[in-house]
Amino acid sequence: MMNGDSTTINITETRKETKGEAPLFAAPRVVASTSVVANTSAVEHPKGGRYKKGIAIFDFILRLCAIAATLAATVSMGTTDQTLPFFTQFFQFQASYDDLPAFQFFVIANAIVTGYLVLSIPFSIVCIVRPHAVGPRLLLIICDTVMVTLTTAAAASAAAIVYLAHNGNSSANWNSICQQFTDFCQSVSGAVVGSFVAVVLFLFLVVLSAFALRKY
Amino acid sequence: MMNGDSTTINITETRKETKGEAPLFAAPRVVASTSVVANTSAVEHPKGGRYKKGIAIFDFILRLCAIAATLAATVSMGTTDQTLPFFTQFFQFQASYDDLPAFQFFVIANAIVTGYLVLSIPFSIVCIVRPHAVGPRLLLIICDTVMVTLTTAAAASAAAIVYLAHNGNSSANWNSICQQFTDFCQSVSGAVVGSFVAVVLFLFLVVLSAFALRKY
Repeated sequence: MMNGDSTTINITETRKETKGEAPLFAAPRVVASTSVVANTSAVEHPKGGRYKKGIAIFDFILRLCAIAATLAATVSMGTTDQTLPFFTQFFQFQASYDDLPAFQFFVIANAIVTGYLVLSIPFSIVCIVRPHAVGPRLLLIICDTVMVTLTTAAAASAAAIVYLAHNGNSSANWNSICQQFTDFCQSVSGAVVGSFVAVVLFLFLVVLSAFALRKY
Repeated sequence: MMNGDSTTINITETRKETKGEAPLFAAPRVVASTSVVANTSAVEHPKGGRYKKGIAIFDFILRLCAIAATLAATVSMGTTDQTLPFFTQFFQFQASYDDLPAFQFFVIANAIVTGYLVLSIPFSIVCIVRPHAVGPRLLLIICDTVMVTLTTAAAASAAAIVYLAHNGNSSANWNSICQQFTDFCQSVSGAVVGSFVAVVLFLFLVVLSAFALRKY
């Protein structure tokens, strides 16, 4: 589209220049210039457009999958709450995601990413409708890169804590808590897996956008 | 470069066609065809080339900074070793990075990223020398995206454990170990900060590559 616009503008500019010249002098010019007509991007558009439209549709589908993954991770982690059936005189044993800061960060980060993905859907649709639009594509790749970092940070920090909850650490004298809170550990592990799936989907989104941005 | 080549080939073809025509007939053609000359990429190349060369040089500098950051993080974490001055009858109190799996992962991941960055330097130089080459640029953006995930995962998991070492967690009955191992905690925190700096530099690298890939 951009190339088409610039062609029209330049026609009027060069028309003024060449109008004053004699036809005889113009003859060699024709030779040099008609050659370039075959070189315009108008010839390349149909093939590149179909290719880019395919990428945009795949981008849209991946985005829907990523929404499912991050939403499942958020809900799975956010609703985790286990109360043990026994209690002492002083307190009841209860485990919830907000006991551990890493899990709180996980829920917040995944909620933000889910919100971003929902808001990015219209831009993805714009990229399907107008495969050659560079603006939305560039916006998507920049935001996706930032969001892949946020998702990875949330997933990795939660994974580190989940590992500790499962195995404990004898050097630091931290005990495993998963022997008591089995259900809690299971749903938390599931949430971490869901978040890592979202990270992989995001990686594909960024790579696809890079391919869609490249020239032919 | 591609556009420049095809222009030269087409010149010779059309020269043959138009040579036989009378100069007078060529006059209206001049108007329609010289217009396209302004649209060739030969006109856009100097501006776009300089812009892309600037991006490539900035990419190279950022890459050197990222090497420094990840190398500092790796060395800082890898050489951390603290032995407390007191000991009981049975064992000596000692803290090293390989006591905690998250820190081991941190060292390995940062070493891999440092190695990748050193190997990517030649490709970055190729992008400076040939600003319009799409291949190395695309390779760099894909590998950078994978590496930003690895760096973020390492930094975030180590940060989660460092937070736990500093503050402990009363719900899970995990005690803070930084009250004893102060030097250990300090150098580990420094390494995590270095790794997060590398993450930010990587984000800039990916965004720069996206801008370099886009069309005009």
